[in-house]
Amino acid sequence: MRFLEFFRNNRKTTATVAKERLQIIVARERTTRNGPDYLPLMKEELLLVVRKYIQVEEGAVTIQLDKEGDCEVLELNITLPDAPTAS
Amino acid sequence: MRFLEFFRNNRKTTATVAKERLQIIVARERTTRNGPDYLPLMKEELLLVVRKYIQVEEGAVTIQLDKEGDCEVLELNITLPDAPTAS
Repeated sequence: MRFLEFFRNNRKTTATVAKERLQIIVARERTTRNGPDYLPLMKEELLLVVRKYIQVEEGAVTIQLDKEGDCEVLELNITLPDAPTAS
Repeated sequence: MRFLEFFRNNRKTTATVAKERLQIIVARERTTRNGPDYLPLMKEELLLVVRKYIQVEEGAVTIQLDKEGDCEVLELNITLPDAPTAS
């Protein structure tokens, strides 16, 4: 399954909300337990990149970090402000 | 379905490759056609963030941009160099 399908299917749960949304996912598969755990450190920097392009209000971001076995997933969900209509 | 399951299921196709991998996905759902198309612009900056933490070789990155209806997905797949074993 492509991620696009996954993303489209997942929006059913937020179908009542008409706002735009942006989702950033960083997933890491580790073959060893070695190496630094940098995913948590990345989240502020990823938000800085996003903020260069769009206005993100403080309460508009939810962050989740999941670990299971050798996989680790950082998920940022951002609700975007309504886009201005073209003049 | 949680993304973690999606990510784990998807690795079956690359099971023969023992290297670590990192996947970054930026997905945007637009309620209108307005606003700039910033996803393609973000990819270099996202790679800069990743490169602060890990060494990424030039050929180790594949980038894909998918669009379907009101959804747009930027996907970066990075094969990581082998982690050094703990001494």
